[in-house]
Amino acid sequence: MKGRLLTTLLISMATVISQGQDADILKYVNPFIGTDKMGHTYPGATVPFGMVQLSPDTDTIPYEVNGAYNRDVYKYCAGYQYADRTIVGFSHTHFSGTGHSDLGDILLMPATGPLQLNPGTADAPEKGYRSRFSHSNENASPGYYSVLLEDHDIFAELTATARTGVHRYTFNKGGDSHVILDMVHGIYNDAGKNVWTFIRVENDTLVTGYRQTSGWARTRSIHFAIAFSKPFTSYGFRDDSPARVYRGFWRRFDQRTNFPEAAGRNIRGYFDFHTEPGEQIIVRVAISPVSSAGAMANMIAEAPRADFETVRFSAEASWRKELGKVKVSMVNEGQMTSFYTSLYHTFLSPTVYTDDDGSYRGLDQNIHLAGGFTNYTTFSLWDTYRALHPLFTIIQQRRTADMINSMLAHYDQSVHHMLPVWSHHANENWCMTGYHSVPVIADAIIKKIEGFNYDRALNSCITTARNGWYDGLDDYMKLGYVPDDRTGSSVSVTLEYAYDDWCISQIAGTEDLKREFAERSRNYMNVWDPATGFMRPRKRNGSFREAFDVLSTHGQGFIEGNAWNYSLYVPHDPAELIRLHGGKKRFTEHLDSLFTMYLPDSFFADTEDITREGIIGNYVHGNEPSHHVPYLYNHAGAPRKTQYWVRHIMDQKYLPAPDGLSGNDDCGQMSAWYIFSALGFYPVAPGSDRYDLGSPLVKEAEIFLENGKTFTVTAVNQGPENIFVRKAELNGTRLDRLWITHDEIMQGGQLVFHMGR
Amino acid sequence: MKGRLLTTLLISMATVISQGQDADILKYVNPFIGTDKMGHTYPGATVPFGMVQLSPDTDTIPYEVNGAYNRDVYKYCAGYQYADRTIVGFSHTHFSGTGHSDLGDILLMPATGPLQLNPGTADAPEKGYRSRFSHSNENASPGYYSVLLEDHDIFAELTATARTGVHRYTFNKGGDSHVILDMVHGIYNDAGKNVWTFIRVENDTLVTGYRQTSGWARTRSIHFAIAFSKPFTSYGFRDDSPARVYRGFWRRFDQRTNFPEAAGRNIRGYFDFHTEPGEQIIVRVAISPVSSAGAMANMIAEAPRADFETVRFSAEASWRKELGKVKVSMVNEGQMTSFYTSLYHTFLSPTVYTDDDGSYRGLDQNIHLAGGFTNYTTFSLWDTYRALHPLFTIIQQRRTADMINSMLAHYDQSVHHMLPVWSHHANENWCMTGYHSVPVIADAIIKKIEGFNYDRALNSCITTARNGWYDGLDDYMKLGYVPDDRTGSSVSVTLEYAYDDWCISQIAGTEDLKREFAERSRNYMNVWDPATGFMRPRKRNGSFREAFDVLSTHGQGFIEGNAWNYSLYVPHDPAELIRLHGGKKRFTEHLDSLFTMYLPDSFFADTEDITREGIIGNYVHGNEPSHHVPYLYNHAGAPRKTQYWVRHIMDQKYLPAPDGLSGNDDCGQMSAWYIFSALGFYPVAPGSDRYDLGSPLVKEAEIFLENGKTFTVTAVNQGPENIFVRKAELNGTRLDRLWITHDEIMQGGQLVFHMGR
Repeated sequence: MKGRLLTTLLISMATVISQGQDADILKYVNPFIGTDKMGHTYPGATVPFGMVQLSPDTDTIPYEVNGAYNRDVYKYCAGYQYADRTIVGFSHTHFSGTGHSDLGDILLMPATGPLQLNPGTADAPEKGYRSRFSHSNENASPGYYSVLLEDHDIFAELTATARTGVHRYTFNKGGDSHVILDMVHGIYNDAGKNVWTFIRVENDTLVTGYRQTSGWARTRSIHFAIAFSKPFTSYGFRDDSPARVYRGFWRRFDQRTNFPEAAGRNIRGYFDFHTEPGEQIIVRVAISPVSSAGAMANMIAEAPRADFETVRFSAEASWRKELGKVKVSMVNEGQMTSFYTSLYHTFLSPTVYTDDDGSYRGLDQNIHLAGGFTNYTTFSLWDTYRALHPLFTIIQQRRTADMINSMLAHYDQSVHHMLPVWSHHANENWCMTGYHSVPVIADAIIKKIEGFNYDRALNSCITTARNGWYDGLDDYMKLGYVPDDRTGSSVSVTLEYAYDDWCISQIAGTEDLKREFAERSRNYMNVWDPATGFMRPRKRNGSFREAFDVLSTHGQGFIEGNAWNYSLYVPHDPAELIRLHGGKKRFTEHLDSLFTMYLPDSFFADTEDITREGIIGNYVHGNEPSHHVPYLYNHAGAPRKTQYWVRHIMDQKYLPAPDGLSGNDDCGQMSAWYIFSALGFYPVAPGSDRYDLGSPLVKEAEIFLENGKTFTVTAVNQGPENIFVRKAELNGTRLDRLWITHDEIMQGGQLVFHMGR
Repeated sequence: MKGRLLTTLLISMATVISQGQDADILKYVNPFIGTDKMGHTYPGATVPFGMVQLSPDTDTIPYEVNGAYNRDVYKYCAGYQYADRTIVGFSHTHFSGTGHSDLGDILLMPATGPLQLNPGTADAPEKGYRSRFSHSNENASPGYYSVLLEDHDIFAELTATARTGVHRYTFNKGGDSHVILDMVHGIYNDAGKNVWTFIRVENDTLVTGYRQTSGWARTRSIHFAIAFSKPFTSYGFRDDSPARVYRGFWRRFDQRTNFPEAAGRNIRGYFDFHTEPGEQIIVRVAISPVSSAGAMANMIAEAPRADFETVRFSAEASWRKELGKVKVSMVNEGQMTSFYTSLYHTFLSPTVYTDDDGSYRGLDQNIHLAGGFTNYTTFSLWDTYRALHPLFTIIQQRRTADMINSMLAHYDQSVHHMLPVWSHHANENWCMTGYHSVPVIADAIIKKIEGFNYDRALNSCITTARNGWYDGLDDYMKLGYVPDDRTGSSVSVTLEYAYDDWCISQIAGTEDLKREFAERSRNYMNVWDPATGFMRPRKRNGSFREAFDVLSTHGQGFIEGNAWNYSLYVPHDPAELIRLHGGKKRFTEHLDSLFTMYLPDSFFADTEDITREGIIGNYVHGNEPSHHVPYLYNHAGAPRKTQYWVRHIMDQKYLPAPDGLSGNDDCGQMSAWYIFSALGFYPVAPGSDRYDLGSPLVKEAEIFLENGKTFTVTAVNQGPENIFVRKAELNGTRLDRLWITHDEIMQGGQLVFHMGR
């Protein structure tokens, strides 16, 4: 075995060397970016779009404190907060950048000394199994995480395949050692969240089971298989809040110790080992949406041996491959880190949700076999249709087809006849507004992405858009807008429906359909109030609501935004929006006001998740509805202002530090905005084939396309002061327009920006 | 459609007529027998060994009342008590004759008038959806049940296929009508029993979902598909004790009315119809252990149309086929009813636990495909190894192989490496003692049942019997008995292990194994106390326990029996038992005492489930450990006493009336005792090929064997006074022994008893 290990290492090294400079890409990824405060990213180990996100959780957060919602739940959406000083353990599923929380399944924690089966508290970690740690003893890179658990003197390392997390624990001092398996732990913790857990100790190295929860996803289950590299000497389970069960003849058994089946709502378990000083134990944890047998098969397919290094090597190789799709040079290392960490964050979700054999749990809770595609979940579409999925149409085309096929499967299984709003581990959690699978699908069709059935996709879009029961759609179809009497976010919803409908009109096959949805796409006009110059809540009787505070983010007809930000949400028809505003000059002044106005302190006191540092004037980059806004200057004949503000945002809101993100990364949307903007262009209206030009941050970029071609971006005379584009050339020809098309990128070629002050 | 219905009816009638006299068998089955008091049978509709047992439940029984166990739970093991005057509804799963309770899944109840979503109470049925009913408007026969629901003026009829229950509701007065779907209801009811329920309204006639519970089976799920013959006009769901869930964007929806997905712990729903007077609605409910997709496929395979009559006809045909395997004539109609109702009860369980496509949920909660066999569950083996499974070795040979293959699959999936103790819908509920899959397997091997792997079966028996962790087995293997210090039922357990071990010795392949288990089979001697003449609890130090009450059923080292009854439990070695008792004469006197002694009233006050009417002297027929005891007289040279007592028991303890059973039918064991005894022979020690002769109750019986041969029993000069056998002849030759062998039955032939006073 030693010989084999050496060979593997030599091959690994040879490959690294032969890959030359590309190997360095990984050093520009700092998984800690966004882990402090509001980014809601996690620092743990995962592979691109992997089902497993194996990451440390730094606290246990109850959903309620004293009967009221605990606002800390929001802080811990990804389980980790950089300011914390203790680690509870390592769990296998994490969302990246979401604003609601769930997952955190199957927490493992190595420990030494007397057994403790409760997590303890941040204040008194010694009273539980958790441990103090220090960032100076912590490392994270793509596919790898390590930390010294000080209380136990255990060095813990994590890596992963797509469906298997691999832990390597080095017991520095050895002695009485344990691995805790906490099935209660989750993001967030709540005695009522677990629905059921089931654990089998198959033999002295293998444990299987599942965890079922009802949280943000109402009916969720995750199955697992855990393989230890060393036999445990004993084990046990406790259910601190056991469900009432008909105990009957179970009473004959001591179920607490070495009893190989445990089932109940809130189970914590342990596995005992005696370790020598410096001894390592490797634990592989495979998961499956289907069954523990599926998890076991995933482990056998992906990590058949307890070989940490091979898995880590493979994880790093897969990151090099994906991150290598865009090769950039930038002015400084900090920008390199921001760029590649952003690219890393864009490749974290959606996540694979098929077993190795192609089976997965559907929205109907039945098991389906994915025919010819990989099924994905974690579609945070209200966020990600804007820039993440458009980015994928350039550098993840095959996955784009898989993702759309996943959406269509979701639609087929939906008892609501709806494309996903927020697809969440075989659940629809209905998060946010609109039907933004539609722009993803329309964008892919317009951009000629192959691998899914366009007719089937179009039909699912149309059916979705005609679902009268959904969030005011019946009123919208009748009145042309969602009335304020109906819902508190009537304006946001109306604007988003109008845009989504425009997307359908772009792919509609018949004139009737084109006309129907083109008409609907103009519905944004129905909430335009010329008197105030804002989109405004309108009542069922046609009149605008009297009370209207254009600054407030509460109760004004908007969601995650105020009238200032949301009123600019007509991405598909900026020309008409500008006309409504009274022309380009007045519109430009309006945008100037947005970016430069000074907000009263009361605004920040009232608004969750928005701080004065997080915004620019009244422009909120941390929430998505404004992401296209800086590019609207282009349409008002003021491209220098687009260039100014996008550079400003890149400089100010994406810092290469744990607290560097100005808002939740939102499953990669924030990062995708950065990638596009850094490359010098941005998809203002997905569903069109155009990308608006901005001001590139890169000095040079090569985008290696799946069709074998390369599209390069060069910023001549790039520099921190040279933020304005003097001219742009495409394949040597000066551009007389402020956009490029998708086809132009796909054909390969050169986009050259000449920069200046 | 009318034409087709008429054709179906004509075909049905023609078939009935062509079957001639056999059709009458069904009239001798009275499914109400055992539904009063302690029989714990259910009167509803099922097919032989069917997965669906669709039957009325007459009350809702909480597991606890005022914080204490509710003894009524015991009364309602089958959901129905004959004395009740209201019906709550019709649920789809029921155990037949068990002494613990579970199931009662997916309760439907038709109703008229204003919607009520609670079941109401027996005292005030009008305050809920339940209804008064009268036995005069109630009918039950194999595969069919009907009742007039008086409060709603609805005539409800039930029938079933193997996996689909079919309801036909005639709304006599019509008007506002509903079908209630109560997912909370179960046998028993308890807010903590439901783990999760999930419901989808697929369209206006189809509803799917599942129910997950933790009760007697700790981790159980059942999936369903419900098809209505008429579209409902509206529907809704309520969760009276909702689990805490992250409601988020669900708040936008009115989930109470016409919202097609419901999930939670305690959901009740309704479906609204307008009905004309006399209108019928047919509801098909298919179930599956696997998934709602599996349930749907089961329905399509078994009941593709809403055609009640065809399903009923088919159910009745399957009962005619199974019951027709034994054709008897008896002295009176009451005996005919007792016989065929008993035979009916023996064919209710074990129950099919594979979907139509062969897939099923295993003990490991994974989905398995049964390769080449039908998987069964509901093995109440402590009861049924005694006579039910031996009966199946004669008249259900193919199913016996399937059942053993099911046990072996259970063993393969068992994390405990145990054959089933009590196999319960993909759970082991551990009910009762011993490892009595072993005698079922040994009996089948000894009797040359084909269709399972003998080596694999033997190995599973041996591994099971060597599982030291199980219920004192380690001590048993070390000390030769289970010490009283270890468990409260040490004597019962020791005696049962010894018998089970003898079974292994009969099929063991090597001399070493034969010796090992033959030695273990003599362990019963280690708890024999010559001083008292009883089996007696023995302590770890070898001494007998001082305090010892041979009458008490509590804390004396026995379970479901006292020393008088259990001390005779050496079925595999009556000769040695008789020797221990001091010879045949003293043993006969001992048995005489058992059957004739007069017990103090205090005995009955202390003992659950045993009444003075239920026992004979101190002989308790309602509990299984004595079932072989009347036949022990044969071994003591007193066959007339065997003949006397078995006739007495048949006459007194099996009456053709709802309260006709003297104890729980125990999944058919009580009934199987009757079938054997009525035929004139009984398997005292399954695992041997012998059947002890008793006193037949039949005048004439033909047993149609699966090998095409017929074995007939004739009782010449049969009559109520002629209970003694003057001589017996097998194939014309006078028998000089008190037994026949299995081979003699299988070869076909004639057993003639000459009866006299």
